[in-house]
Amino acid sequence: MVMNYTGKRVKKLKKLLEKKWFKGDDRRMPSISEIKKALQELKIETPSWGYGNSGTRFKVFTIPGAARDVYERIADAGTVHRFTGVCPTVAIHIPWDKVDDYKALQDYAGENGVAIGAVNPNLFQDEDYRLGSITNSDPAIRRKAVAAIMECVEIGKKIASHSLSLWFADGTNYPGQGHIRQRKEWLEEALAGVYRAMPKDMQMLIEYKTFEPAFYHTDIPDWGTAFLIASKLGPNARVLVDTGHHHPGTNIQQIVAILLQEGRLGGFHFNDRKYADDDLIAGSIDPYQLFLIFNEIVDAGDLSAGIAYMVDQSHGIEPKIPAMIRTVMNIQTAYAKALLVDREALSQAQAEGDVIAANSILQDAFETDVRKMLAEIREEMGVPADPLQAYLKSGHQQKIEAERV
Amino acid sequence: MVMNYTGKRVKKLKKLLEKKWFKGDDRRMPSISEIKKALQELKIETPSWGYGNSGTRFKVFTIPGAARDVYERIADAGTVHRFTGVCPTVAIHIPWDKVDDYKALQDYAGENGVAIGAVNPNLFQDEDYRLGSITNSDPAIRRKAVAAIMECVEIGKKIASHSLSLWFADGTNYPGQGHIRQRKEWLEEALAGVYRAMPKDMQMLIEYKTFEPAFYHTDIPDWGTAFLIASKLGPNARVLVDTGHHHPGTNIQQIVAILLQEGRLGGFHFNDRKYADDDLIAGSIDPYQLFLIFNEIVDAGDLSAGIAYMVDQSHGIEPKIPAMIRTVMNIQTAYAKALLVDREALSQAQAEGDVIAANSILQDAFETDVRKMLAEIREEMGVPADPLQAYLKSGHQQKIEAERV
Amino acid sequence: MVMNYTGKRVKKLKKLLEKKWFKGDDRRMPSISEIKKALQELKIETPSWGYGNSGTRFKVFTIPGAARDVYERIADAGTVHRFTGVCPTVAIHIPWDKVDDYKALQDYAGENGVAIGAVNPNLFQDEDYRLGSITNSDPAIRRKAVAAIMECVEIGKKIASHSLSLWFADGTNYPGQGHIRQRKEWLEEALAGVYRAMPKDMQMLIEYKTFEPAFYHTDIPDWGTAFLIASKLGPNARVLVDTGHHHPGTNIQQIVAILLQEGRLGGFHFNDRKYADDDLIAGSIDPYQLFLIFNEIVDAGDLSAGIAYMVDQSHGIEPKIPAMIRTVMNIQTAYAKALLVDREALSQAQAEGDVIAANSILQDAFETDVRKMLAEIREEMGVPADPLQAYLKSGHQQKIEAERV
Amino acid sequence: MVMNYTGKRVKKLKKLLEKKWFKGDDRRMPSISEIKKALQELKIETPSWGYGNSGTRFKVFTIPGAARDVYERIADAGTVHRFTGVCPTVAIHIPWDKVDDYKALQDYAGENGVAIGAVNPNLFQDEDYRLGSITNSDPAIRRKAVAAIMECVEIGKKIASHSLSLWFADGTNYPGQGHIRQRKEWLEEALAGVYRAMPKDMQMLIEYKTFEPAFYHTDIPDWGTAFLIASKLGPNARVLVDTGHHHPGTNIQQIVAILLQEGRLGGFHFNDRKYADDDLIAGSIDPYQLFLIFNEIVDAGDLSAGIAYMVDQSHGIEPKIPAMIRTVMNIQTAYAKALLVDREALSQAQAEGDVIAANSILQDAFETDVRKMLAEIREEMGVPADPLQAYLKSGHQQKIEAERV
Repeated sequence: MVMNYTGKRVKKLKKLLEKKWFKGDDRRMPSISEIKKALQELKIETPSWGYGNSGTRFKVFTIPGAARDVYERIADAGTVHRFTGVCPTVAIHIPWDKVDDYKALQDYAGENGVAIGAVNPNLFQDEDYRLGSITNSDPAIRRKAVAAIMECVEIGKKIASHSLSLWFADGTNYPGQGHIRQRKEWLEEALAGVYRAMPKDMQMLIEYKTFEPAFYHTDIPDWGTAFLIASKLGPNARVLVDTGHHHPGTNIQQIVAILLQEGRLGGFHFNDRKYADDDLIAGSIDPYQLFLIFNEIVDAGDLSAGIAYMVDQSHGIEPKIPAMIRTVMNIQTAYAKALLVDREALSQAQAEGDVIAANSILQDAFETDVRKMLAEIREEMGVPADPLQAYLKSGHQQKIEAERV
Repeated sequence: MVMNYTGKRVKKLKKLLEKKWFKGDDRRMPSISEIKKALQELKIETPSWGYGNSGTRFKVFTIPGAARDVYERIADAGTVHRFTGVCPTVAIHIPWDKVDDYKALQDYAGENGVAIGAVNPNLFQDEDYRLGSITNSDPAIRRKAVAAIMECVEIGKKIASHSLSLWFADGTNYPGQGHIRQRKEWLEEALAGVYRAMPKDMQMLIEYKTFEPAFYHTDIPDWGTAFLIASKLGPNARVLVDTGHHHPGTNIQQIVAILLQEGRLGGFHFNDRKYADDDLIAGSIDPYQLFLIFNEIVDAGDLSAGIAYMVDQSHGIEPKIPAMIRTVMNIQTAYAKALLVDREALSQAQAEGDVIAANSILQDAFETDVRKMLAEIREEMGVPADPLQAYLKSGHQQKIEAERV
Repeated sequence: MVMNYTGKRVKKLKKLLEKKWFKGDDRRMPSISEIKKALQELKIETPSWGYGNSGTRFKVFTIPGAARDVYERIADAGTVHRFTGVCPTVAIHIPWDKVDDYKALQDYAGENGVAIGAVNPNLFQDEDYRLGSITNSDPAIRRKAVAAIMECVEIGKKIASHSLSLWFADGTNYPGQGHIRQRKEWLEEALAGVYRAMPKDMQMLIEYKTFEPAFYHTDIPDWGTAFLIASKLGPNARVLVDTGHHHPGTNIQQIVAILLQEGRLGGFHFNDRKYADDDLIAGSIDPYQLFLIFNEIVDAGDLSAGIAYMVDQSHGIEPKIPAMIRTVMNIQTAYAKALLVDREALSQAQAEGDVIAANSILQDAFETDVRKMLAEIREEMGVPADPLQAYLKSGHQQKIEAERV
Repeated sequence: MVMNYTGKRVKKLKKLLEKKWFKGDDRRMPSISEIKKALQELKIETPSWGYGNSGTRFKVFTIPGAARDVYERIADAGTVHRFTGVCPTVAIHIPWDKVDDYKALQDYAGENGVAIGAVNPNLFQDEDYRLGSITNSDPAIRRKAVAAIMECVEIGKKIASHSLSLWFADGTNYPGQGHIRQRKEWLEEALAGVYRAMPKDMQMLIEYKTFEPAFYHTDIPDWGTAFLIASKLGPNARVLVDTGHHHPGTNIQQIVAILLQEGRLGGFHFNDRKYADDDLIAGSIDPYQLFLIFNEIVDAGDLSAGIAYMVDQSHGIEPKIPAMIRTVMNIQTAYAKALLVDREALSQAQAEGDVIAANSILQDAFETDVRKMLAEIREEMGVPADPLQAYLKSGHQQKIEAERV
């Protein structure tokens, strides 16, 4: 969870990385109470923009009850937390969520039961950014873009946010349009400046994306580039994995494992997709992949401490709050199943080269029905056993649909 | 070219299909004058929507000089024709290009040197269509969508357009959301009604698309589905190949060859892409593929008669008219190179199983610099040898940038 | 199951297709006893070649206990049936499984508790086939290839097999190497001859494949082409869906739905993959997709009668019989979950446009743990509750590893 | 070219990297004599294995005249050099090219006009390596694999090879089969040992590959992982880019640019593909991509010094030597066109944000017919103007086809 992040994580991670990753006793099966504890401690950050209308280039549909301003977006994040108990923070996006008084916004969030988490500068909404923001060949536009990020650092300081989450739409549409190496240099220069300005307890999350909106080359197209840049910046720069930002067939769980091992996994933007960056509900298309990602997280033990679990989805045709609650439930399901993996047996099967057995151990965990366990855990936490049904029956959706016209 | 299409094509195609596709003498190398004639006869239809602002889900940038209404869009199509000499028609999109008096619109087009070509109903821009248009589970919405297509049939009659070009955004985002077979039945029912209402000299072009804006399933996802539906409808229904609407790696030229062989290739929506449906300038990412597509068209000889060559692109960051002129030039380049293939030698190499020789014959044609030949042909047609440079020097772009604010 | 197929299916299908596909009462939830019955009736055919050593172009590893000849391969199929109770047939591949006396082979299969199912001609193993078999430009090689298929028709008659299963490695590696339309004509000509020679109660299954071993174009690359050819041949020609033979991201369940609706789904070659045609254990990479395929099958009701459920995998690093048993179990799991879908509720959610509810209904069925139910069903059938564990404990693997050196 | 590599490159690169990558005067258009000089200096290494029979998992066809042993393979490399003048080295693969006396082999190569270039250990051909070589869970197998690499280091010393080229087939086929992080640790441990054993003037080239023969996860799946490992090892470890080892749609030229910028591009394995790692003739499927790769190389100026240009292809259906000569010609064509790019104009267009102009500059260079220029250059070098035709007319192919039966 984002809020837990402090500069301390760096030291702890360093220690862990100096030790061998593998300790026999880490592999034992957790007890039921440990599993429950882990599930109760998994915190998921939802994004403010996910509560407003969004869509495709063809049409942004008006979804009944969608939030119309930053206050309604934060209120909705609060509602999701109230029904799930595991979404105590909400990410904001500047300038969409720009206000005069961030202290007041923070207070408003608090009144709605949540805190503000990661701060995300949007650098794609101005005419200036047509050919790039921090990689634009015009130095004035690059300066403007860096200033916009610096503003987010300042906002973060004001609201005690520990995460600066950076995604850049920057890239080119045609061969020759931009100079790839030159743009990378501008990118590194810009981020170096921002990094220096960050307080010690802030981490920079660097997101990568294969394509879209740039169609020929994207300045940070893959984890390798994000990792390379983060490594140059320093220990507080990490890679943000958006599950939809890969080529079809990419083994995302392996990327997660490698970044964990290198101490550079900053967090996730969860969503699912069948083709490109479809931004569908996490686990709705390939639930096994989501499980396998959590399998790496669980397996990594303490190396996974401090990861930011965030949602980044665009509910273009479905109601916003129900879609977000369903997302949270799917993530919990994947995590619960990953916690059930018999790691001792798995370790043994791997050591013995028993392919079928090793694979079956994962499948067994995945095939386990965890809905009852999750219901029980939720009730222990004081939230509804089935958050989605509870929400739908609460009358809240009807209320906001009536209010927000 | 669309305008040439009449009911006669069907009979002619039938005859051709009854004969063997292959006649020795069809394979001879065309003479220079034949090549020139072929290039002068290649007509490319540009889309009205391509002259206005468009973009991605992240941002629609304001491109200086972009057309602001249907009249400016048609004027721009006229400008492209004036500089290239091969774009005598412009496709319209309803309701974007809706006017009260289509006769007057036709006259206006005529004054700008062009005619109106294919009529395209847009069925994705209304709130009603959130869960589909002609495949919506609500019969009232299906009826509304069919009525919108029928309106386009009527418009086509008024302006003597012979092409009804159909692309549907219909599909679902999640497993279970829709009933795949039921939706296909609704689709076929709707199109059967439209087909019956079409005049005899109108053809229905059915477009397919892998994904977007639907992210889990699209009702017409591939050429197989479009072909299947067209076959059920009758001889005036054909498949429209948009070069960007395939999975990465798809052999599009093979699809073109098969549809030509079956007499079901209605036409093209040209564009290029690196990842998904990026709608970039045709030939800008993979010029060899564009050449290989034209190679199949040339090879098919008379089977290729009556194909509609249309452009469907979204110039999100570049000036509209220059981008369209460049597109037309790239298409001509690919066609010119395909005309240069030594088909007799190729046929012999294929018969002898000489893999390297056969492949080299295509490569030789592709490596030939055809820019001078094209310049000559253009001058013979009374248009500038280099349409792009001529346009840029003409002052027209500056003029419209000043006028259209 | 293949053995059930007779000419009668055609008539029955025709009737079904004449009726509307949708009847309200088909949508009710099946009873537990019906679910059990359905699961006991699902028959899966295993391939003889799956029991011998196979691998990649880099290495064919020697798997301990792998079958060394056709008799051992059939015996292994018998073993899989003995432990699972649902694999009563084995597909053979000619010339790999060529024998002098097919009657004797049939008897031998019978002694091992199985019957011979589909007959598959292999047309890629001879030097002659370097540039194609039935699409080779050399007519003598085309004739040879057709004769090899005819031989399989004859074998099928001798052993009362009702399925001729056709996959062609034919295609080209380079642009220009072959003439796409000409090759398609040769293909159609060859299959027409075979079709005419088939007895009335034999069905021709036509498989398609995107690529490999041909790397530029494959003569039957997609379901559209296979469907087109089958349609021309007649009612006994159908499409065979190999789950690994698609571009990444393809919605295979939609193809299944369309083919069912058109009465042209002949059967499956099950396997799984992450990248290309990896031939991994079905359900091992994307179990949700396998479930969604079965969801279409169950939903289609009587339209699904007579489908051939076949396995086509290459266990390159894991023991053969355990891998096959695990495969069968995974297929049963997917089918069991698909049977649990509440189709009445789903239908209602779809009609109401309730996206989240509709999707949740599928997810609920998928998240249900069906292992106990399957164990019970197996015991009712007189086979072990856990066939894999039972096999591993039976000592059979050790026995064949010792015998087959 | 590999042979030029010495420890000096490291120092030179370091200097270059310390300077800005960009110097105005580097951008000027080269003179014709400079272009000719550059083309004459481009050296391409061919692989010994490319001259013997190889194929797919379905069939290894016997290609007439294919080399049968290491001596014939080296003789064939010599033949390719004799006709092209730019292939002075041949890569060897151990154990395929294992001999008792490497000094004698070196002499034999010299007699055939070539030298031995990179040494490649094959670590996939033994039964031991079924579950991995240097990432096998069995320490004895890991040691064996490391010993095999060490042997190659020793061979390299004996024959004064400066390149140790490493590709690992290692990976897993199923989720759970292996422990991703543990395997990465073993990998790093193994390579660290090898790196320490390398002489100062040897470079380690680390190749990555998305998939195949491992189908679920490959231990070095992408450039990011190869880069990460190389960075840990030291300045003599670099990344090897095989153009076929990426997901479809990957912007390979961007990877090349980034690695050049970071001083970590070791070299290439050239080939082309449409789907997966098809190992087709370089430039036969996407010649524009090959040009764009060389565009980055040319643009990088001195940063590109010392790159190893190597071919890695599998000519499964075409004659070996002609296929290799055609490959070399295609690579020269791409390089020649890249040298023609007007970098000053391009730089200006990029600075001005003129998308169409910048793209057109690349297209213009690509559309230029360079066949005559290349013919002239070849004649100046004393080799045939058209090496392929000259070879085919030389009678050499007939000779080896007769001799090698």
